[in-house]
Amino acid sequence: MLQRNAPSSIVKRLPVYLRILDNLIKKDVEIISSRTLSNQTGFTAEQIRKDLAYFGAFGTRGTGYNTVYLREKLLKIIGLDKETNVIVLGSGHLGNAFGRYNIIKNPYIRVVGMFDVDLEVIGKRVEDLHIEHFDKMSEVIKEHNVKVAVLTVPAEQAQYVVDELVKCGITAILNFAPTKLNVPKNVHVHNTDLTIELQSLIYYSSSEEEGIN
Amino acid sequence: MLQRNAPSSIVKRLPVYLRILDNLIKKDVEIISSRTLSNQTGFTAEQIRKDLAYFGAFGTRGTGYNTVYLREKLLKIIGLDKETNVIVLGSGHLGNAFGRYNIIKNPYIRVVGMFDVDLEVIGKRVEDLHIEHFDKMSEVIKEHNVKVAVLTVPAEQAQYVVDELVKCGITAILNFAPTKLNVPKNVHVHNTDLTIELQSLIYYSSSEEEGIN
Repeated sequence: MLQRNAPSSIVKRLPVYLRILDNLIKKDVEIISSRTLSNQTGFTAEQIRKDLAYFGAFGTRGTGYNTVYLREKLLKIIGLDKETNVIVLGSGHLGNAFGRYNIIKNPYIRVVGMFDVDLEVIGKRVEDLHIEHFDKMSEVIKEHNVKVAVLTVPAEQAQYVVDELVKCGITAILNFAPTKLNVPKNVHVHNTDLTIELQSLIYYSSSEEEGIN
Repeated sequence: MLQRNAPSSIVKRLPVYLRILDNLIKKDVEIISSRTLSNQTGFTAEQIRKDLAYFGAFGTRGTGYNTVYLREKLLKIIGLDKETNVIVLGSGHLGNAFGRYNIIKNPYIRVVGMFDVDLEVIGKRVEDLHIEHFDKMSEVIKEHNVKVAVLTVPAEQAQYVVDELVKCGITAILNFAPTKLNVPKNVHVHNTDLTIELQSLIYYSSSEEEGIN
């Protein structure tokens, strides 16, 4: 049985390993040690061994991991061994960046729909997609068996859109709207707030000489 | 003396508290308990109390935090009590999303320059900015005393651009390029990789019934 309850800290690192393995395989590298993976990721070798051991015994002690074998296992663990269909809500700059995903990224993820309520943008083409009205969402979700949605709508509309998504059977949401979403327990929300990322970065840029009192 | 070595896990939560305080103050709420903050953030009340206590005694036991006071303290801790100038490298969809930041977001952060090497886009207007050639970067950094940069260039160009940024005195980089950057110890890089965010989310959407062997 596939565990779906791995700690999110581990899950977030798996695609990082995958990307490095992709590059290594392109360069015909067959074996990689946790130490080399550590150099390329910035995570400690111990952390990497623990992360991978969580899912099984994929390496050989003193040698390392077979790149092709580990890549295949990771694809399966993440769920990228088969195509995953994704929809994008909102067609602003961020939505567009995801809409262009099909062309520029990898073969595992396919954006099958992009939705908005603004009549001015509906019908416009983003790569191989046309922006559709929000009303068409449930149809597209059903047709393509979509479970994953990227939410780039304004904060005020986010909860309403999410309620609709959940009704349609979406179970994983990448949320860029700057608001906390309420969802049932079986739905996983991953919040990525670019304002908050930028604000927390500013902490590190502030002068060290200044006091707070 | 202001500590700049707070754990990044705490630093990332500070802007979340700040946003909630902004909303509460708009609604004339004067006091907030850690329990209410917990409801609004999804972090535990204990976590919130620990986070804030890291920087000082801002609350009153049994009562809570004064919203205006706590907000002022947080602004100072993060470094948002004065305007911070930011530049954006790369003018694709993601770069554009940040270029529009001045209009749509808050008064603390100001994007003062947007740079690209593509002659087709240089000179184009993004809100109150014009996209400038990469060569103009050091001038703008000096003029506006910029310490923070948002990197949205392709992976292959990222390290070169970062080396230039570091030479110009940038100390905090929000990196969207899907690659690990090498920087001196005094430079803080915050990696946000949208592909990796999406891939790790797919883990949670995969069917629980499938085995990996």
